[in-house]
Amino acid sequence: MKSKQYKTSIIGASGYTGSELARILVNHSETEIVSITSESHQGKKFSDLHAQFSGILDLTLISADEVDVAGLDVIFLALPHGVSMEFVKRWQDSGVKIIDLSGDFRLSTPEVYEDWYKKSHTYPRGFEQAVYGLPELHEKRIKSATLVANPGCYPTASILSLAPLFQSGKVDAKGAIIDAKSGITGAGVKASNTTHFSNVNDNFKAYGIGNHRHTVEIQEQLSFLLKKSVYLQFTPHLLPVDRGILATAYISVEGAMNQEKLDKMYQDFYNKKPFVRLRNQAPSIKEVRGSNYADIYPFWDDRTKRAIVVTVIDNLVKGAAGQAVHNMNLMLGLEESTGLNQVPMQP
Amino acid sequence: MKSKQYKTSIIGASGYTGSELARILVNHSETEIVSITSESHQGKKFSDLHAQFSGILDLTLISADEVDVAGLDVIFLALPHGVSMEFVKRWQDSGVKIIDLSGDFRLSTPEVYEDWYKKSHTYPRGFEQAVYGLPELHEKRIKSATLVANPGCYPTASILSLAPLFQSGKVDAKGAIIDAKSGITGAGVKASNTTHFSNVNDNFKAYGIGNHRHTVEIQEQLSFLLKKSVYLQFTPHLLPVDRGILATAYISVEGAMNQEKLDKMYQDFYNKKPFVRLRNQAPSIKEVRGSNYADIYPFWDDRTKRAIVVTVIDNLVKGAAGQAVHNMNLMLGLEESTGLNQVPMQP
Amino acid sequence: MKSKQYKTSIIGASGYTGSELARILVNHSETEIVSITSESHQGKKFSDLHAQFSGILDLTLISADEVDVAGLDVIFLALPHGVSMEFVKRWQDSGVKIIDLSGDFRLSTPEVYEDWYKKSHTYPRGFEQAVYGLPELHEKRIKSATLVANPGCYPTASILSLAPLFQSGKVDAKGAIIDAKSGITGAGVKASNTTHFSNVNDNFKAYGIGNHRHTVEIQEQLSFLLKKSVYLQFTPHLLPVDRGILATAYISVEGAMNQEKLDKMYQDFYNKKPFVRLRNQAPSIKEVRGSNYADIYPFWDDRTKRAIVVTVIDNLVKGAAGQAVHNMNLMLGLEESTGLNQVPMQP
Amino acid sequence: MKSKQYKTSIIGASGYTGSELARILVNHSETEIVSITSESHQGKKFSDLHAQFSGILDLTLISADEVDVAGLDVIFLALPHGVSMEFVKRWQDSGVKIIDLSGDFRLSTPEVYEDWYKKSHTYPRGFEQAVYGLPELHEKRIKSATLVANPGCYPTASILSLAPLFQSGKVDAKGAIIDAKSGITGAGVKASNTTHFSNVNDNFKAYGIGNHRHTVEIQEQLSFLLKKSVYLQFTPHLLPVDRGILATAYISVEGAMNQEKLDKMYQDFYNKKPFVRLRNQAPSIKEVRGSNYADIYPFWDDRTKRAIVVTVIDNLVKGAAGQAVHNMNLMLGLEESTGLNQVPMQP
Repeated sequence: MKSKQYKTSIIGASGYTGSELARILVNHSETEIVSITSESHQGKKFSDLHAQFSGILDLTLISADEVDVAGLDVIFLALPHGVSMEFVKRWQDSGVKIIDLSGDFRLSTPEVYEDWYKKSHTYPRGFEQAVYGLPELHEKRIKSATLVANPGCYPTASILSLAPLFQSGKVDAKGAIIDAKSGITGAGVKASNTTHFSNVNDNFKAYGIGNHRHTVEIQEQLSFLLKKSVYLQFTPHLLPVDRGILATAYISVEGAMNQEKLDKMYQDFYNKKPFVRLRNQAPSIKEVRGSNYADIYPFWDDRTKRAIVVTVIDNLVKGAAGQAVHNMNLMLGLEESTGLNQVPMQP
Repeated sequence: MKSKQYKTSIIGASGYTGSELARILVNHSETEIVSITSESHQGKKFSDLHAQFSGILDLTLISADEVDVAGLDVIFLALPHGVSMEFVKRWQDSGVKIIDLSGDFRLSTPEVYEDWYKKSHTYPRGFEQAVYGLPELHEKRIKSATLVANPGCYPTASILSLAPLFQSGKVDAKGAIIDAKSGITGAGVKASNTTHFSNVNDNFKAYGIGNHRHTVEIQEQLSFLLKKSVYLQFTPHLLPVDRGILATAYISVEGAMNQEKLDKMYQDFYNKKPFVRLRNQAPSIKEVRGSNYADIYPFWDDRTKRAIVVTVIDNLVKGAAGQAVHNMNLMLGLEESTGLNQVPMQP
Repeated sequence: MKSKQYKTSIIGASGYTGSELARILVNHSETEIVSITSESHQGKKFSDLHAQFSGILDLTLISADEVDVAGLDVIFLALPHGVSMEFVKRWQDSGVKIIDLSGDFRLSTPEVYEDWYKKSHTYPRGFEQAVYGLPELHEKRIKSATLVANPGCYPTASILSLAPLFQSGKVDAKGAIIDAKSGITGAGVKASNTTHFSNVNDNFKAYGIGNHRHTVEIQEQLSFLLKKSVYLQFTPHLLPVDRGILATAYISVEGAMNQEKLDKMYQDFYNKKPFVRLRNQAPSIKEVRGSNYADIYPFWDDRTKRAIVVTVIDNLVKGAAGQAVHNMNLMLGLEESTGLNQVPMQP
Repeated sequence: MKSKQYKTSIIGASGYTGSELARILVNHSETEIVSITSESHQGKKFSDLHAQFSGILDLTLISADEVDVAGLDVIFLALPHGVSMEFVKRWQDSGVKIIDLSGDFRLSTPEVYEDWYKKSHTYPRGFEQAVYGLPELHEKRIKSATLVANPGCYPTASILSLAPLFQSGKVDAKGAIIDAKSGITGAGVKASNTTHFSNVNDNFKAYGIGNHRHTVEIQEQLSFLLKKSVYLQFTPHLLPVDRGILATAYISVEGAMNQEKLDKMYQDFYNKKPFVRLRNQAPSIKEVRGSNYADIYPFWDDRTKRAIVVTVIDNLVKGAAGQAVHNMNLMLGLEESTGLNQVPMQP
């Protein structure tokens, strides 16, 4: 394989985010993975952890301490929150561009972080430079960022669902309800009662009712759009599927509204956004599986005077690794959809 | 097998409702299935259609025309809506007790039916005698009924979720949002694109947004409790599971409220109801699978001043055949939980 | 609830075998669960571990040390192999009847055990009294046994598949191939990479090729029937389902054979066995799910001169808890199918 | 999008094979889809049938009669058997290269076809030119072919499993047993009882025991390698997964054999074959999902003197569309893995 223009490293090999970044990056025309790290598996091959990469990506895993930052253009932090901030601290002044897939720098301040994540933040300075990496909202700032906080999976679907309406100003700041459903990969690669097949298969449940930490991430971004403080209801549920999030968002709308106006509002907002597909019927999560698309269906219910917006994404792609590559493309000045041409895999 | 006290017949053998009635009734101590009908499969054995009954229930299917109503105590109509009303018309004056599992007599008037079901009703007189068969609300009337309209699956879960709050009067008649998720058996036994494995497996979608006909059934029952007209938002979704409904209901509450008061309100309302289990954490649908339980978790979110109530049922049991047997027990004067002792099957 | 005639205890509450025994026994007309033990969860309620039992079986878990054996008729050991033998040692001379659901006493001698289980056996004396609890083969001995070794799940399906042919003597002792597929509950309740939803869902694999310890259990029972030493090929696979085993067994047959003779051979062998259903088409695992049936389809392939026998069971019922209750019924002199009338749950 | 070098057409838009060809070809660097046909859906967009292609491939479907063969380099026939032969007849002499994904020209003669497919063949002349499109066996002939019969999904996995051993000559021509398991997409896109979610989910069954038509396809190719007539046992099963085939093949081996020799035999046979990955542990089907890989694990059981070979493929890719594109690459003189770099999608 010939060497490519930009060099990247993935910090954290064992999780789904790490393997999904690799899945996308091995076929990216402009960048090359030069190292992947794992503290607990160093010395093994990447394909020993993720057998699907046998013969495709057999790179030997190294410790993060061995990463030569000087030779890198971009570092992806595919680490748990709380851990990630330490690596941002270590590398933020090195000149390398950092894309952090954890929740450590997504919120506005360390105080909000500590309030919802229930742990202290050890690198408050990171917040000064971190840009929230949702390209549909912050493209310009992402292009010049050195630290991007890649959005959470639920927030990606939820914010995209409601952004046009909140920007329009025609909604009640306290009126939104987001009922969201995620595949099990959202719970991570770790074996637990929650992820045991027999507790998931043919099953379904709600969790984190009233206190899921993605609530505040959504609120902050919608507040930015509405220009006042937003409080909303967010309820996540666990689907017996591997990948995919579907968010059903409900909001009353002030003033005259109809289906045509609603469609127009969404078309205007998402004009020229390559990964948003506005749909005219309710999409299913498999229609975006494996791809970076967010399919959005805005519906006006004239009987109840509510907008109901259904959005589907692949939580590992648009909700994590794909969006991270999108951010990388923007940060490197590449065409924004480079390497992100995966067709959704249905069936 | 020795003959039992009461004789029943199941009209409609091929659907899930028919086979689920059989699953429950073969082990019911006081009643006996004397005939099962199918127009398209008459002459075959019941176990030819449903192989799980091999050696258990090998009754030969007959035409509904051959049913000897005089010898029966109870008839279950396990038929599509629109078809069921014809059989109610035929048998309503025969003295046999009829439990109709279709939607034909669940609503208040033929006009409402025609408005939401988009077809004319050919037996309006049936509405005069039909009792809505939700035992937790209408036990007394069911006991003396000759025609019971067995509730829809979504309405069962939805009404039970919100009944205590609507009876309390402390809620906005237009404020409820019910985001409901159902297993695929809710779509019936018929092969279609909707039920094709590859369109369901690892997938999830919303449907019937804003216009599902169960909306009005829920509204009518909650209106009865609130004593004024209720308008609510109901959104069904399709889960990649066989059985089970989970309803997540959202409603703002007027006046002082907290978790303790909410719990007390639900405990008082469901006191001595054998099939409602009030839970103190969010239940999963497998925790009631195969059983007649409705597990309800009322949660108070003090941040948003909303009650969020999660209810799970097995759509084929508490949402159909089990509730029908419960109604039969009440109509026959039997102990209400007779034959309904199935332990939920998890895993 | 009124007290019943026989008292039982379940040793080991946390696994699937324990909860499945409870699911069956709570509706058994002649026996009562007086205690359930768990060393790691003592003090909790059984329904805290298995929420499906809320309000059904809320018994407080005790330590095995607190079990009062004198008041018991039957003890079920729902423990891992290696642990179970210690409890057999402790209670074998107490007069209580023991049904051991582990693999500790299924094989003929401690030596064979040590060879295949790769650990030493600490209670060799148990082998003297242990009876292999497959009622279709050993009913008479089970009736008078004080210690029954409940068969493994794969062996139950595999032995029942081939028993008539091996008893007939018309097969090559080294010719059988059993390709078996099991649901994930066979791997137990413990969270691990093997049981993680995303490693099971939409997936399938073989494991234990050539060395699975159930091989020798099957060989020993078929050797008993053939009256010479049997060596066979056994390959297990992991299905993305909760419950169920399907075994596809292949064997060449000596002498004249055809479908009719094969059917007759199986009918004769399984005459009056209440839980074997001979089928005339290939059964699916859901056709026995939740029930104690073994559905067997013997097929003669005249082109290849082989018998191909497909057998399905629910691994947790006929392959574990249901068969244990069947054994209990025989040991107590009850009608053998008492409490085992569950209709298979399809869908 | 700029025009690419080679022009292709897909005949038959509605099935999985058609959509999977599109999924691969839209990202193929050297070829372009210029038309897709459907008789029943002409006039609709391709993405109306397959919503995952919204905004990616919105080509209007045309009738096959409108296809301008003169402007095409390659035609893919994604049609049912029996239908496909008519189109081969129509276009075989036009100069366009044809890749037929049906079973119509896979077998050696029309007589064999008629014997196993139970219908008469209307274009026997096609057999003269058809080349069996398994590149690992027939690469040279494929390169110069004008009509390629793309192998069946089961045969691809089965033949690759056993090819090295049959070529070695050290096996009994009547001794092989192939126990194969396929995802439901193998049964096609048509809604039926077989494909209804509730008949597949949490379920598993065997079918076509002793008479599946893929048997003869496997036999013919292995006969070609062994240089004598092969008769084997082939048993397919239906997995509750979308995609994937796992074949477990059993065969006794004559002469001295051990694991090392077996591995060497497979390494030599598959040397430089880009889509065969020899594995040293049993692979799972998700490890190849969405990709063109065949992962093969040859195991020697010294206890039973049998080779047990486990092979996994994605039935829609290596078992259909991917292999078709591989064949196209060979026929056009392109690098053989062009456009086939999809990384397996796990999870």
